[in-house]
Amino acid sequence: MRDLHARLPTGPDAVSFGLGMPSAELFPNAAYGRAVAQLLASDPKALQYALPSPVLKRHIVALMSLRGVTCSPDQVFLTAGGQQGISLLSRLFLDPGRVVVADEVTYEGFSAAIQPVRPRVLTVPVDADVGSDPDALQSLLRRGARPAFVYLIPDGHNPLGCSMPLDARRKFVALAREFQVLMVEDGAYGLLQYDEKPAPPLRALDDEWVCYVGSFSKILAPAIRVGWLVVPTWMIPLLSRTKQGEDLDVGNLNQCALATYLDAEDFPRHLERLRSEYRVRRDRMLAALKAHFPVGTRWNHPSCGFYIWCELPPGLDATERVDAAIAAAVSFVPGDVFRLGGRQLRGSMRLSFSTYAPNRIEEGIRRLGWVLHAVTDPGSPGHVGHVVVGGDW
Amino acid sequence: MRDLHARLPTGPDAVSFGLGMPSAELFPNAAYGRAVAQLLASDPKALQYALPSPVLKRHIVALMSLRGVTCSPDQVFLTAGGQQGISLLSRLFLDPGRVVVADEVTYEGFSAAIQPVRPRVLTVPVDADVGSDPDALQSLLRRGARPAFVYLIPDGHNPLGCSMPLDARRKFVALAREFQVLMVEDGAYGLLQYDEKPAPPLRALDDEWVCYVGSFSKILAPAIRVGWLVVPTWMIPLLSRTKQGEDLDVGNLNQCALATYLDAEDFPRHLERLRSEYRVRRDRMLAALKAHFPVGTRWNHPSCGFYIWCELPPGLDATERVDAAIAAAVSFVPGDVFRLGGRQLRGSMRLSFSTYAPNRIEEGIRRLGWVLHAVTDPGSPGHVGHVVVGGDW
Repeated sequence: MRDLHARLPTGPDAVSFGLGMPSAELFPNAAYGRAVAQLLASDPKALQYALPSPVLKRHIVALMSLRGVTCSPDQVFLTAGGQQGISLLSRLFLDPGRVVVADEVTYEGFSAAIQPVRPRVLTVPVDADVGSDPDALQSLLRRGARPAFVYLIPDGHNPLGCSMPLDARRKFVALAREFQVLMVEDGAYGLLQYDEKPAPPLRALDDEWVCYVGSFSKILAPAIRVGWLVVPTWMIPLLSRTKQGEDLDVGNLNQCALATYLDAEDFPRHLERLRSEYRVRRDRMLAALKAHFPVGTRWNHPSCGFYIWCELPPGLDATERVDAAIAAAVSFVPGDVFRLGGRQLRGSMRLSFSTYAPNRIEEGIRRLGWVLHAVTDPGSPGHVGHVVVGGDW
Repeated sequence: MRDLHARLPTGPDAVSFGLGMPSAELFPNAAYGRAVAQLLASDPKALQYALPSPVLKRHIVALMSLRGVTCSPDQVFLTAGGQQGISLLSRLFLDPGRVVVADEVTYEGFSAAIQPVRPRVLTVPVDADVGSDPDALQSLLRRGARPAFVYLIPDGHNPLGCSMPLDARRKFVALAREFQVLMVEDGAYGLLQYDEKPAPPLRALDDEWVCYVGSFSKILAPAIRVGWLVVPTWMIPLLSRTKQGEDLDVGNLNQCALATYLDAEDFPRHLERLRSEYRVRRDRMLAALKAHFPVGTRWNHPSCGFYIWCELPPGLDATERVDAAIAAAVSFVPGDVFRLGGRQLRGSMRLSFSTYAPNRIEEGIRRLGWVLHAVTDPGSPGHVGHVVVGGDW
């Protein structure tokens, strides 16, 4: 995704729906600054090497309980963000040639994490409304597949935006137990639920076969680079050794400042504020899509996370529209970027509704609609867009 | 080394010579706190995902010039500390079965970094006074070895404390060019030179075959978790992709706060203060060794870094003394921990002089001397020491 940074539209009125960036207006700069100041003033060893913070682990246990998960601090492993959690688990359980299972359309950071290990990847179909297909996994396992783990994003799927119904979650957990297969549950968006009564995470249904990947990036701030895993205790020393070889430890300053921040602030209230604001943005994007996108476009109604998945009418190729969109100071990610297997996805796109205030969302979707309409109407101003940055995605 | 944390002596009067911890009294808590506060107050996107900071890269270019290295910001790659620099280069250039060359006694974090890739390791002898042996490398290369890279610590070697003479540096660089072999130069301690006219780093002698690993951990604070690589520009996109899969990016908060700190402070003066204080500590430890260690013990006189290497008189086994030392509230690392090849090193130990004020160094060495003397005098109180923590190193 680093390449995408270089391909953002620029200028003061640019609107990027491309990256999964949380809203900067919702960052707690002042409160986090107070936490850093308090820590540096009171702890002369705040800048020293240190063991993982037990206070932070206890806060994470409390956060997990908000999702209905019962765990203990000795099942919590601190990471430098969710990506490192996925990468460490891949490092630990995958060997070259070993099998891993994931959705045929999935978070491209998962592909990046497993790439150095070069495992064999099997995929299951995933639907933009109901998520991953447990029956397809059952069929793979019955036919003898023995994956090191299955990677799933049950809540606020990236890129599809969907969340899995309880029934599918139960099926995945039952398969994990029956076939003794680990499930890696990416919960990066799991605390950003916009509708009533979300289904519990897989980790709430099983504590032996599910490894939960958590992160403060989407619910607090990405630049702090702190995430966590909830895993069976036997994995902790193995993860510790692997992380030690990669980057020693999670920086003590960020760990302890975060713990200090969580001590001082009402974090559930912060989460409620995020949910309330992102809910408004989601609804505004849904309304704008209806108002501005070509007739025949389909999109889903996510109840969690940052993303809406759009399928354009037949004949419209999202990948081909990238440069015209950038010329119109707006961006998105074409669906094909997220494809791990299965058919091409040139007619779809991922839109993030998280980054901008509602009025800019409206303006960006209006522009993007204009770029899409221009294809069917070459006389429209959408066609003057020149290629800003060359190269492939 | 994480295990070592768990084996530190505890209590208010404990003295650990085991870990390579910089002195907490030399951390710039106040100045760094000001930098964080200024950043968070002035930049609403300080907590957002971001590209590597160009300002920080320019500061690193200036730092490298203090070592006589000419480089440009587009040769600088930011990492989450020196360990990640080593790990990323290993990930990039090593495949299972591929050959890598290192000193037969070396930084144990190097072994941890390459372990997941399982390369074939060839070693060269290393001397506690003059460092790695270039003739041994020449011989390996002439006999047909084609390593992915050679890992060297020319300045303030960890664990040996020695620095390589200019002549040996020139030979290594000549071999790199002749055989087109990359040298990974670990410069974590390179800015902590205590004597006059240190030799230039390998990177000052060659910019095509040397990858320089730098870190702020020893010269500013480990908890900030920022380091860097200086590499040929063609490696930057490859490193970027690898890091992206592992942990996305270096946290923007730490990067930018560090850049803000370096903008505001006189960093060369900070370095001079570190050098001056660590020089005093080194000298105090050398004097204490002479006063308190058994006759027949040999140690070197490091001109750089954190470590003194001690070889005990025949019959004294450092590994066997670990528990007695911990019982006497003092610790060290037995030399054998750092052995990558070659003969056993049970008679040697690494002592860090960096962590404590001079008086505590004196007290710790006195106690350690007492523990070592106790072996030859079973009636001495050194023998009451009980095993505090079990298990192997």
